[in-house]
Amino acid sequence: MSQIPVAVLGATGSVGQRFVSLLDNHPWFKVAALAASDRSEGKPYAHASRWILSDPMPAWAREMTLLPCSPQAMPDVKIVFSALPSEQAKTLEPEFASAGFAVCSNASSYRAESDVPLLLPEVNAQHIHLVRHQRLARGWSGCIVTNPNCTSTGLTVAFKALDDAFGLKKAFVVSLQALSGAGYPGVPSLDILDNVIPNINGEEEKVEWEPRKMLGRLDETAIALADVKISAHTNRVAVLDGHTVCASVELTQPVAPEEAMRVLRAYQAPEAARDLPSTPNPVIMVREEADRPQPRLDRLTGKGMTTVVGRVRPDPLLTLKFVVLSHNTIRGAAGGSIYNAELLAREKLL
Amino acid sequence: MSQIPVAVLGATGSVGQRFVSLLDNHPWFKVAALAASDRSEGKPYAHASRWILSDPMPAWAREMTLLPCSPQAMPDVKIVFSALPSEQAKTLEPEFASAGFAVCSNASSYRAESDVPLLLPEVNAQHIHLVRHQRLARGWSGCIVTNPNCTSTGLTVAFKALDDAFGLKKAFVVSLQALSGAGYPGVPSLDILDNVIPNINGEEEKVEWEPRKMLGRLDETAIALADVKISAHTNRVAVLDGHTVCASVELTQPVAPEEAMRVLRAYQAPEAARDLPSTPNPVIMVREEADRPQPRLDRLTGKGMTTVVGRVRPDPLLTLKFVVLSHNTIRGAAGGSIYNAELLAREKLL
Amino acid sequence: MSQIPVAVLGATGSVGQRFVSLLDNHPWFKVAALAASDRSEGKPYAHASRWILSDPMPAWAREMTLLPCSPQAMPDVKIVFSALPSEQAKTLEPEFASAGFAVCSNASSYRAESDVPLLLPEVNAQHIHLVRHQRLARGWSGCIVTNPNCTSTGLTVAFKALDDAFGLKKAFVVSLQALSGAGYPGVPSLDILDNVIPNINGEEEKVEWEPRKMLGRLDETAIALADVKISAHTNRVAVLDGHTVCASVELTQPVAPEEAMRVLRAYQAPEAARDLPSTPNPVIMVREEADRPQPRLDRLTGKGMTTVVGRVRPDPLLTLKFVVLSHNTIRGAAGGSIYNAELLAREKLL
Amino acid sequence: MSQIPVAVLGATGSVGQRFVSLLDNHPWFKVAALAASDRSEGKPYAHASRWILSDPMPAWAREMTLLPCSPQAMPDVKIVFSALPSEQAKTLEPEFASAGFAVCSNASSYRAESDVPLLLPEVNAQHIHLVRHQRLARGWSGCIVTNPNCTSTGLTVAFKALDDAFGLKKAFVVSLQALSGAGYPGVPSLDILDNVIPNINGEEEKVEWEPRKMLGRLDETAIALADVKISAHTNRVAVLDGHTVCASVELTQPVAPEEAMRVLRAYQAPEAARDLPSTPNPVIMVREEADRPQPRLDRLTGKGMTTVVGRVRPDPLLTLKFVVLSHNTIRGAAGGSIYNAELLAREKLL
Repeated sequence: MSQIPVAVLGATGSVGQRFVSLLDNHPWFKVAALAASDRSEGKPYAHASRWILSDPMPAWAREMTLLPCSPQAMPDVKIVFSALPSEQAKTLEPEFASAGFAVCSNASSYRAESDVPLLLPEVNAQHIHLVRHQRLARGWSGCIVTNPNCTSTGLTVAFKALDDAFGLKKAFVVSLQALSGAGYPGVPSLDILDNVIPNINGEEEKVEWEPRKMLGRLDETAIALADVKISAHTNRVAVLDGHTVCASVELTQPVAPEEAMRVLRAYQAPEAARDLPSTPNPVIMVREEADRPQPRLDRLTGKGMTTVVGRVRPDPLLTLKFVVLSHNTIRGAAGGSIYNAELLAREKLL
Repeated sequence: MSQIPVAVLGATGSVGQRFVSLLDNHPWFKVAALAASDRSEGKPYAHASRWILSDPMPAWAREMTLLPCSPQAMPDVKIVFSALPSEQAKTLEPEFASAGFAVCSNASSYRAESDVPLLLPEVNAQHIHLVRHQRLARGWSGCIVTNPNCTSTGLTVAFKALDDAFGLKKAFVVSLQALSGAGYPGVPSLDILDNVIPNINGEEEKVEWEPRKMLGRLDETAIALADVKISAHTNRVAVLDGHTVCASVELTQPVAPEEAMRVLRAYQAPEAARDLPSTPNPVIMVREEADRPQPRLDRLTGKGMTTVVGRVRPDPLLTLKFVVLSHNTIRGAAGGSIYNAELLAREKLL
Repeated sequence: MSQIPVAVLGATGSVGQRFVSLLDNHPWFKVAALAASDRSEGKPYAHASRWILSDPMPAWAREMTLLPCSPQAMPDVKIVFSALPSEQAKTLEPEFASAGFAVCSNASSYRAESDVPLLLPEVNAQHIHLVRHQRLARGWSGCIVTNPNCTSTGLTVAFKALDDAFGLKKAFVVSLQALSGAGYPGVPSLDILDNVIPNINGEEEKVEWEPRKMLGRLDETAIALADVKISAHTNRVAVLDGHTVCASVELTQPVAPEEAMRVLRAYQAPEAARDLPSTPNPVIMVREEADRPQPRLDRLTGKGMTTVVGRVRPDPLLTLKFVVLSHNTIRGAAGGSIYNAELLAREKLL
Repeated sequence: MSQIPVAVLGATGSVGQRFVSLLDNHPWFKVAALAASDRSEGKPYAHASRWILSDPMPAWAREMTLLPCSPQAMPDVKIVFSALPSEQAKTLEPEFASAGFAVCSNASSYRAESDVPLLLPEVNAQHIHLVRHQRLARGWSGCIVTNPNCTSTGLTVAFKALDDAFGLKKAFVVSLQALSGAGYPGVPSLDILDNVIPNINGEEEKVEWEPRKMLGRLDETAIALADVKISAHTNRVAVLDGHTVCASVELTQPVAPEEAMRVLRAYQAPEAARDLPSTPNPVIMVREEADRPQPRLDRLTGKGMTTVVGRVRPDPLLTLKFVVLSHNTIRGAAGGSIYNAELLAREKLL
């Protein structure tokens, strides 16, 4: 079977590097183009990017010449993965979608649009069909599909399992987020060594809103937001990869921790999102130790695609307390966009 | 005026070292004895303790011979500061109290006893008078006075200001706690570099209960717990000193963030606890920057005795969200016990 | 082909865990026993060991019952890998060797004995034949083979390539060593966050002596130490894995950096040590960037078995300066012992 | 006595902030102007600078309006402290010197000029008189006086004491440098957490050359470089402040470590450089513990102006090995420039 040619926009940045690394040996996709800012255009990828991952740069990527980020410059590719900054994504992604490309975007620019899927396949695979409406409404032959903010990601997976089983009403969440979430160069070392930064610009609004869209119901042309109220505090800590989130939730009924753990463990992706190359296995790993999940030890569970939940216990104010861990640049960014693209391919929406 | 002779029990550990450092040049107290475990007894302090503070060890302490932790071994001292582990504190502190010493303890062993003050002078100075009942009930000529857990400390100061002004009903709190809170050697570096540990044994129970006692009302022989419900998650992060706590609170009425900030800034210690050598100045510092307080930058505010509050903003579920920072081994441990001792002295309860 | 049954002594510690992890799916060896201190004896491995690696514990290890560290307790195994502390290794390893086991030891206890090979197969594979003399001299049916200190390891690989080509006379070396080299719990976090510890007990003596034995010539019954003079400073830094060493060397002739890089790149293991399952590929990786090798980015080169060299440049006092990086718990400890065992097996010395 | 008005150029950066902090309450100097890049000109200092020190910003600085970095913009000041980047320093410092200001510079731009003093008052106070020649040669009414690179600083102080007593011939040095040496934002956290960067651009050349000028002899119009050969490796490590340097030195005669320690301890600044407000007290602190100096524990010795030396021991190749620690932004940058200015004032060279 021939592979689907894909491109990465913003390939030199930290999320762009993850795309390149995760697309190495992908069974369905083959990278046909890497694109970056004007400054890097025309240079070999190995020269233009300061590689920050501990896995070595794939050999095929080293000599690839960086293209400009424009539809005209693209060779014959079907899917473009966007690791662009929001400002650029805002302008460029519609150009690509209009020109017939399926844009799988990690940027926040279009997440809130009513006709753009905000997608975690293991949560709301069926929302992908919103692209049919998007194409009609916008007259695009391509489309834009987004993945959520890295902190919303793991949280929403855990919420989905609990919501299906018990009905989720409220959540109070506090994140301890990794440095790679801020890109490169990102957080200066002088700001975070022996320190915590108790704020991440714009993050709390996203975490309070995005899960509501993903837990919502798709009618034909839009998503009805789920009736869940969320309060979020977001913090940056001295961790390289892996966002930890402390969550307290109110469910529609009392639930014993053991029962919640059983439900979390048993959770499966919707039929359409199972058995894709990037489907997390398991979707949720539940740890029973008193001090897990921990980012350094657990972030690579299920190749970084699994959501890890631990410390499930009663909450004195609401129903349950627990801790969620998710790899922010794999499940929460590049790996998530690739999973979305796989779903598009399976659903014949390319 | 002659100084009051004091002793430090458990002087070689991390909190013990803070006592030694903070008592250097204290205007009222003079260290007459340092005591430690049997292993160190008879050695000069400089040899028996692995000094971990960046302020140098006071010269007077270097050659002091370590005594055993028993009332019989003490020279003529009035106050003993206890930096003992809970197990030892449980046995030894009553022996000292019974023998006539005022024990100002940082241990958790007696905090929950109905006749033992759990004291933050700037919050509940009047609770100190519970020692009169304690002496009658237990037949002691001395007494035990405790300071709360380091995470409860800053939180309760902020809660008190808000409770006085607006009535506090509920709180969700998530801590990001410093390494020094675990003592020395404490947390192995392999466990915390590039990591978060989402649990601290026994801490959440303390944080959910201690503020209720401190915000409670003293009747003659006991404290009526305040009617406040608290849910706590506690985490260890790679910070040397300074506990950061994210808090969301429900008050009895809607309160604008600016009004809350005004109230926090204006908060003063009860009359009895003002103008003592360790009274924090200010009691609460309110920061207006979007990303403060931060432990590295703010922990030494008011010589480490001030509670720093920032990011006061509306909470979508409750009334307000904010962040509290407090120096865990100064205000939250040794400095707190010394402040308690100053109050005992002023109230002529020695 | 049937697999050789092996055991790990000291299996619960940090090096012991690396053995368990690296022996998972080993093509020649199969773990038949895990042994630990009396305290853990009889417990399942998963309960007795606090797993600190980010790779998950192999499933087969979880339920294995820990045996005591004695030859009598061993099932039918040929090789025992020793991750014992030096004190215990001193007593126990001869008991095992005498009882017929091939002891591949990571402990320092017997490295300096004249009849015990100190072995890096890619450097001095032929020294393995010293075990024939060892058996005669000591009357053992088994043997003890040791691998060097983790800091000597990468250094000696680089030295060997240069010594073969140009003759090595002197070396100044300064290490920046990872935390995992100190075992678990090892270095307290309060000692190393925002800090450097400019000393590692006993390490400098080892680094100044061990390379001389490995670069030495085997005559029939002993090793003639190489005539190389080394001065070492050793430091602990806040890195999880991977020892970085700055080295300046005097060679017997002037050598251009490019020529030295060519020689390092071309270096191959002696015939006997090639194509073993753990043979590093390449033996030496030479990096040309101005700021490499770096422990986080380069320590897993060649699955952690490759020695990475960079910044090869002229030295104003001696001949050349360069930087060497080696994974201290893989190449420098467990992986090294396994490589030694593979060589024993190939040379039919079991 | 009235205070001398001074200005700080590049006041918003990390070294600029140290100048502001150290000049607070200076007994001789009073800050009359703060200057920064065009971008910040006209803004209050508190708004334009992201303060990164844990000491709070002095109140007088908060509302000071930032001036442009030009002589014409300066009010009546005698001394300008330069924390400018090298490129800007190259152009601007001569303009200030020509306009009559005494420029005390932390930049490297003019350190190598034959008529510019490279000054550590406790080492080579007499070199200050080179400014007389500089004025004649360049026709300036002002002057430029420089302080060395932060890594050369502590090293040269220790070298001077040894050179005076025993004659220094060669040195092999390896640095472990703090993050603040790279300015702000400086080193990205993703580059240094769990990592070492074994290179600092341009640093090794400075460390190999600057000590030779400072240890050299002033004849009337130039410095004869000292006949010392130095080989340097420089590394960045995850430390906030304080450069640690491992040094091995060859002296003209065998010297016992105890004798060297005695000499280091007894070392005093030249007469002209004693009893100035910034004179380090002691000039050199010698530590006897096996694991000191350490940056976190020792960098503030003598208010950050003292050079701390430890681990003095024999070197197997040269004469002695030891470890030097110096606070890189206090003694090695802003504090050093201020000390130089004090010497200029005392010598009536303003």
